[in-house]
Amino acid sequence: MKKLMMIAVMLLLMSAGYAQVHDSLLLKNRAYTGAVAKRHHYYAIYQLDKNDPKVIQKAIRNINNALNDPRLKGKLSVELIAFSAGTDALLKGSEYENDLKNLVGRGVIVAQCSNTLQERKISKDQLYDFIALVPSGNGELIIRQAEGWAIVKP
Amino acid sequence: MKKLMMIAVMLLLMSAGYAQVHDSLLLKNRAYTGAVAKRHHYYAIYQLDKNDPKVIQKAIRNINNALNDPRLKGKLSVELIAFSAGTDALLKGSEYENDLKNLVGRGVIVAQCSNTLQERKISKDQLYDFIALVPSGNGELIIRQAEGWAIVKP
Amino acid sequence: MKKLMMIAVMLLLMSAGYAQVHDSLLLKNRAYTGAVAKRHHYYAIYQLDKNDPKVIQKAIRNINNALNDPRLKGKLSVELIAFSAGTDALLKGSEYENDLKNLVGRGVIVAQCSNTLQERKISKDQLYDFIALVPSGNGELIIRQAEGWAIVKP
Repeated sequence: MKKLMMIAVMLLLMSAGYAQVHDSLLLKNRAYTGAVAKRHHYYAIYQLDKNDPKVIQKAIRNINNALNDPRLKGKLSVELIAFSAGTDALLKGSEYENDLKNLVGRGVIVAQCSNTLQERKISKDQLYDFIALVPSGNGELIIRQAEGWAIVKP
Repeated sequence: MKKLMMIAVMLLLMSAGYAQVHDSLLLKNRAYTGAVAKRHHYYAIYQLDKNDPKVIQKAIRNINNALNDPRLKGKLSVELIAFSAGTDALLKGSEYENDLKNLVGRGVIVAQCSNTLQERKISKDQLYDFIALVPSGNGELIIRQAEGWAIVKP
Repeated sequence: MKKLMMIAVMLLLMSAGYAQVHDSLLLKNRAYTGAVAKRHHYYAIYQLDKNDPKVIQKAIRNINNALNDPRLKGKLSVELIAFSAGTDALLKGSEYENDLKNLVGRGVIVAQCSNTLQERKISKDQLYDFIALVPSGNGELIIRQAEGWAIVKP
């Protein structure tokens, strides 16, 4: 009987100990305030390959949020690369002309994959005048990543 | 006629040669057993920006799988960053409280984008008590990537 | 009155100046022709975790486009890693056998996450004979990224 009591007490202490460790981890997690930006400059390439308005709007909002992040303000270069269905956002008559011009005005490169134009038989003239053309969107992602750019897919 | 025969034989040999090369490539592919982990430590940041339960569950499962990967066991740091619609998983009353606590218990940082809270008019108190807050989810992704963390989007 | 005129003229000049800067930025953006590939070799790992035929086809098309990109031709290594629902594309009887063999023929590693097989109770024999098996898809992504591979999610 004594033995059983001792085991019970030990188990209780152990579980209390575990709970304390766990709580301290939860508190430690809560105290985290974000990664510290120690570099002089940062780079990100945003992948836009869907024509879902929610995704397009999210991409634009995400880029603006990253540019406004107090940790990155004034030291972030961004490129937005459209391919596949994402091309729709860059076609004349889309509802994103102002948002895209705004991004370019903030220094963002806005570029389109040439492969997609060929595959989908879209002429260059159908894109907004200010859009850049690159050989392939996927090549662009891969080369940029090798240069140290973060690939972000909204 | 002789010439035709010779051409036929040559074509046959060539296609056989091609098939052999191809088969050896297929066998070589099958023999691959995964990248070898040579580093002392690894880092990954998981992006959660959807409230689709399948995606949230996949994110949690993916993180646990990565932590359990024999190649990474005991040498992987993980952060889960929620923004946009992904925030829903971190709101009190969601069905993911235990899973999230479990992740924190395994050393995972679970953090929320402050921008999203502002945009969606969500107060900090609506999040689980143990959630960390960072200036922007996208800034977090970009800074982490620059530090050598892999961005994984489930 | 004179003052008001002066202010009006100044505002006009300022807005003209702004428009000019903006236009020059738009022209500058248009003149961009893609990142320059300066390295000897590049690496990319493609994440396939959905069974939506559009996503599978996009993954295959994306990989071929990257391999064909004039900037990367002959100096790009690619791996395609399937996990979660993406596994479906690698099951015998799927419509992607030829496309996958074609990728292997181009030197692409096509691999499957062992965790997913366990979770979804799929036996190794149900996969095409030539598919490689790795401990976990997420571990693969994380280790590859640490080695300098770009993670691309179609």
